[in-house]
Amino acid sequence: MGYAAFLERMGEVNDLLNAKSILNWDARVMMPPGGAETRAKQLATLSVLARDHLVADRTRHLLDEAEAETQGLPPESIERVMCAQVREAIDYHLRIPADLQQRRAELGSIGQDVWAKARAASDFAAFAPILEETVALNREMAEHIGYDAHPYDALMHRFEPGETVATLKPLFQSLRDGLLPLLRRIAEAPPPRIDFLQRPFPKEAQLAFGLKMAAKLGYDLSRGRLDTTVHPFEVSFTRQDVRITTRINENWMPMSLFGCLHEAGHALYEQYADPAFTRTPLATDLIGLYAVNGVSFGAHESQSRLFENHVGRSRAFWEANFGEARAAFPGLLDDIDAEIFWRGVNRVSPGFIRVEADELTYDFHIMLRVDIESALIDGSLRVSELPEAWNAKIREYLGLEVPNDRLGVLQDVHWSSGQIGTFCNYTIGNVMAGQLYGTAVREPSVAAGLAVADYAPLLGWMTGHVHRHGRRHSRDELLVQATGRRLDPAPYVAHLQNKYSEIYGV
Amino acid sequence: MGYAAFLERMGEVNDLLNAKSILNWDARVMMPPGGAETRAKQLATLSVLARDHLVADRTRHLLDEAEAETQGLPPESIERVMCAQVREAIDYHLRIPADLQQRRAELGSIGQDVWAKARAASDFAAFAPILEETVALNREMAEHIGYDAHPYDALMHRFEPGETVATLKPLFQSLRDGLLPLLRRIAEAPPPRIDFLQRPFPKEAQLAFGLKMAAKLGYDLSRGRLDTTVHPFEVSFTRQDVRITTRINENWMPMSLFGCLHEAGHALYEQYADPAFTRTPLATDLIGLYAVNGVSFGAHESQSRLFENHVGRSRAFWEANFGEARAAFPGLLDDIDAEIFWRGVNRVSPGFIRVEADELTYDFHIMLRVDIESALIDGSLRVSELPEAWNAKIREYLGLEVPNDRLGVLQDVHWSSGQIGTFCNYTIGNVMAGQLYGTAVREPSVAAGLAVADYAPLLGWMTGHVHRHGRRHSRDELLVQATGRRLDPAPYVAHLQNKYSEIYGV
Repeated sequence: MGYAAFLERMGEVNDLLNAKSILNWDARVMMPPGGAETRAKQLATLSVLARDHLVADRTRHLLDEAEAETQGLPPESIERVMCAQVREAIDYHLRIPADLQQRRAELGSIGQDVWAKARAASDFAAFAPILEETVALNREMAEHIGYDAHPYDALMHRFEPGETVATLKPLFQSLRDGLLPLLRRIAEAPPPRIDFLQRPFPKEAQLAFGLKMAAKLGYDLSRGRLDTTVHPFEVSFTRQDVRITTRINENWMPMSLFGCLHEAGHALYEQYADPAFTRTPLATDLIGLYAVNGVSFGAHESQSRLFENHVGRSRAFWEANFGEARAAFPGLLDDIDAEIFWRGVNRVSPGFIRVEADELTYDFHIMLRVDIESALIDGSLRVSELPEAWNAKIREYLGLEVPNDRLGVLQDVHWSSGQIGTFCNYTIGNVMAGQLYGTAVREPSVAAGLAVADYAPLLGWMTGHVHRHGRRHSRDELLVQATGRRLDPAPYVAHLQNKYSEIYGV
Repeated sequence: MGYAAFLERMGEVNDLLNAKSILNWDARVMMPPGGAETRAKQLATLSVLARDHLVADRTRHLLDEAEAETQGLPPESIERVMCAQVREAIDYHLRIPADLQQRRAELGSIGQDVWAKARAASDFAAFAPILEETVALNREMAEHIGYDAHPYDALMHRFEPGETVATLKPLFQSLRDGLLPLLRRIAEAPPPRIDFLQRPFPKEAQLAFGLKMAAKLGYDLSRGRLDTTVHPFEVSFTRQDVRITTRINENWMPMSLFGCLHEAGHALYEQYADPAFTRTPLATDLIGLYAVNGVSFGAHESQSRLFENHVGRSRAFWEANFGEARAAFPGLLDDIDAEIFWRGVNRVSPGFIRVEADELTYDFHIMLRVDIESALIDGSLRVSELPEAWNAKIREYLGLEVPNDRLGVLQDVHWSSGQIGTFCNYTIGNVMAGQLYGTAVREPSVAAGLAVADYAPLLGWMTGHVHRHGRRHSRDELLVQATGRRLDPAPYVAHLQNKYSEIYGV
């Protein structure tokens, strides 16, 4: 009885957070411009009420009862895992003073405006005071959250529980060692053709083809929908309603296509979670206050990267699906074959902008940000030194001279909303994707399916090893169960080395 | 300080109710089918939390403080009106026992399924037990809410505060006296042409034309949007985001066009409320728990009917806008002129279905329902006698024999969701529309505008006398201030008599 009432209470928290997600989706996809100001207030109210509902006396009383009722069960039982996660989340939120939360929310609401103007004017000095305050608030936040070795660890906890500056260091070193020499050799080699990807691909046909390929991977449209937005994303309102968005460039077809596959990868994680977890803590990020089935931001990114890059940019995918691409765009690809297409969509092109980066250079954009963020937080880097530090890393990694701060340190929205600690997720997602994919394809049925555009065996493997479990296990528990190892960059580095050696003949 | 904190608290209630409206809009316009079950739970949670937030100790404490702080102000001051409305709403909700609310919610959730099946099979007996329970629950509800003369008065209060069985009786009599003889004469007269309205009007062109006309009336698209749905509606998420929907029949153009004008009329009420009332109790129906600026359902309907019928179906409207209709549908209206068009869209055609009824017969569908509902509630009519009573009224009013219950007593969704007491709003809206329009057109600038398709003066008049005030005044206070009289059917009856005498030559 106590446990059931506790679960229903947590269902309400999940409902509130899903409501918030729906309001966010609507704001980004459907809302007329006039609605922005009052929508922000509605979102703020839902955030506060969800948090208050979670930490309320009533919830804690029900949690006490649920813990008492389930104490005879093994610690790894679903019931006890749920109780433990809720207990941890309540403790987490109660450690952060209300006024600090409030100050951070206020900073976030003014920061985005300041940042947008500073970016437009490429004027770092105009944004620096906001960033100073963001860093100060996050350091304060870190002290309240608590950490063993480095304050940045406390900030990453919300997005990637268990990840630390100490664990990231060797990971990043492996990536640099494995990828920088490859990148140098590629820079000297002749690039594959991409001209045919710049042909005038009609908007509607691009959307239809992207959605068709997403559905082929397993994205279930009876529980989803595709729309267009400026900044594509995936969001779920329980596993029963998981939506994706993409953006379209009529003269650069890979944007919408791989956008669809990327967001579909995220969506699969949500759609194939265990239905029994719906509305429970195992479908709710109670630390980040976000209704999501995926266990960490990195784990979530592993699925988007896996379906976008390991599947969607593989030679096998285009050998099996190029005919469909031709049929989807009559006349536009008649002189191209699967091999040329595959090479084209894998072109490496070092650039300034993270969100436009290719598969091989992407992690360098991430490592630079994580290193800078952690140095800002531990005080070894000052905000005033940031542009120079940024530009030096871009020079070191990509051999480019950043011409202005708009294309450099001012490009990302994250800091303007008061957020520090989330960038590592992208690279962890890449590494996890390589590790999971490398293990999955050793399964004969998975490998056989990939050759004939049957993705059900791969989806089945991912569902069984990842999606189904929702937030029950930690990211590393998942990895050990699925691949026998904790996070390990070797398969990911090998994947990149193999693919790009072949494409660039290096 | 107390008052400001009280207002912010009420802003949160408004936010929650607007969030609920957004989830409802999404469910009806955007949601994939798989999302229905969890969406229902999210909506239920928001309903319960909004109500709990309103009646919470904390709100009552803030209300006490706000009342103390504002007691020196005049009773009609905005501050005191807000306090009084919140006090009344809290008292209202606290009078209704939680278990009764719960039973009604549960009945509503199973009732719709049972009704949908019973209607499809035209099987009243299958729905009768649900209706018995709906009547019993509503009688119980009425006792808790309280009333002076008739239990039905208590149920109408939520939708049309102040309206009673006693006040409706003479109103209905006036409508019957004024309209039944007209209807009889029209039945003998030759009808206007409607064949040209059944031509194949392309879907996209219909939508574009409907939206263009709605915008011409004043519907502001920077704070709104139009979508298509099976059952059209208007909904607002504060005055800054007010959305309408319509449905399209490619061979019956009036459906989408007048649907757009109707919902735009509702939307104008919301979009032109005083911005200072945003997120306050004056923009929140705290009894019905619905975020809306309009002061009663009937007052809201007055604006939809006014812009649909008094404006949109007037000869002046088509004399001024027929050229636009021709241009919107190339080749489809070349042989038609404004006069034929105007007559066609005003054709009277008595039928079985309320939502398809024309302007002249609509009120008979309403009077029959209100009379039946109040008789069910006071026990003078039994559920088992309902089909016969229904069919007798249709015979009396419209001269039609109801062939089956699907076309009769089973046609409306309202009872299946546990709702009794809302039908009077439609006729009150019609009557109010006649009264407000009749006064507004005496203003020379309003009349001059109507002749040249400039609706700004009319919108200005309605905004000044109705929209701007939000929920500050009661419906009858509004009417007295705007027209010098309380609800009065004479202008409405005169409008119908004049228009239809002319069209039918009777």
